[in-house]
Amino acid sequence: MSKEPNTVYIGRKPTMNYVLAVITSFNSSDTKKVTLKARGRAITTAVDVAEIVNNRFMKDLNVGEITIGTEEMPPREGENRARMVSTIEITLTRG
Amino acid sequence: MSKEPNTVYIGRKPTMNYVLAVITSFNSSDTKKVTLKARGRAITTAVDVAEIVNNRFMKDLNVGEITIGTEEMPPREGENRARMVSTIEITLTRG
Repeated sequence: MSKEPNTVYIGRKPTMNYVLAVITSFNSSDTKKVTLKARGRAITTAVDVAEIVNNRFMKDLNVGEITIGTEEMPPREGENRARMVSTIEITLTRG
Repeated sequence: MSKEPNTVYIGRKPTMNYVLAVITSFNSSDTKKVTLKARGRAITTAVDVAEIVNNRFMKDLNVGEITIGTEEMPPREGENRARMVSTIEITLTRG
C-alpha cells in the first residue's frame, strides 16, 4: 500500500485518532472523497472509523464503494511461509 | 439479526468453520447467494471467510454488495450505557 493523497491508513492506534485524521483530510483539502485502507485486525477499526465519522461528526457523508482483498505479507520471524492477510478499502464521499 | 436462510453469522469460532458453512450453504440449497453477517471483532473474520472461500475453494464466486452499519447492544454487566457496535454484511454470489 503506497502513500496516496486523501487516503487514511488504519493501524493499531486508538480509533479516534483515525476519526480525526478523516475529518481533517476532508476539511483541509476540501476534497469530496477520502479512502480508508486497513488489513488484518485493523479491518474492524476501519469500519468503526467510517461509522463514527458518518453518524456522529459528518452527517453529510456517504459510504461509497467498499472493496475487500487479500495481500501476501512476508513471513514472521521464525516462520518460513508468507501469510495471506485480508484487506478492506472503504470510500467516504461528501456531497 | 434474525435467522434467515442462506445467511451465515460469523462469530468467534475458527475461521474455517465458517468457510465450511458457506460452502455447505451454496451446495446444499443450490442457492446463488449467501450473505455473511458479523459485528465487532468478527468483522475481520467475515472478510477472511469471504476471501478464503472465493480465492481457495469456489473460484466461480463473486463478492457482491458489502454494507456496513451500527447496532446498539445492551450494556455489559456493571455498565449502564448501551454500546454501539459496527456491523458488516458481505454478499457472495455464484454464477
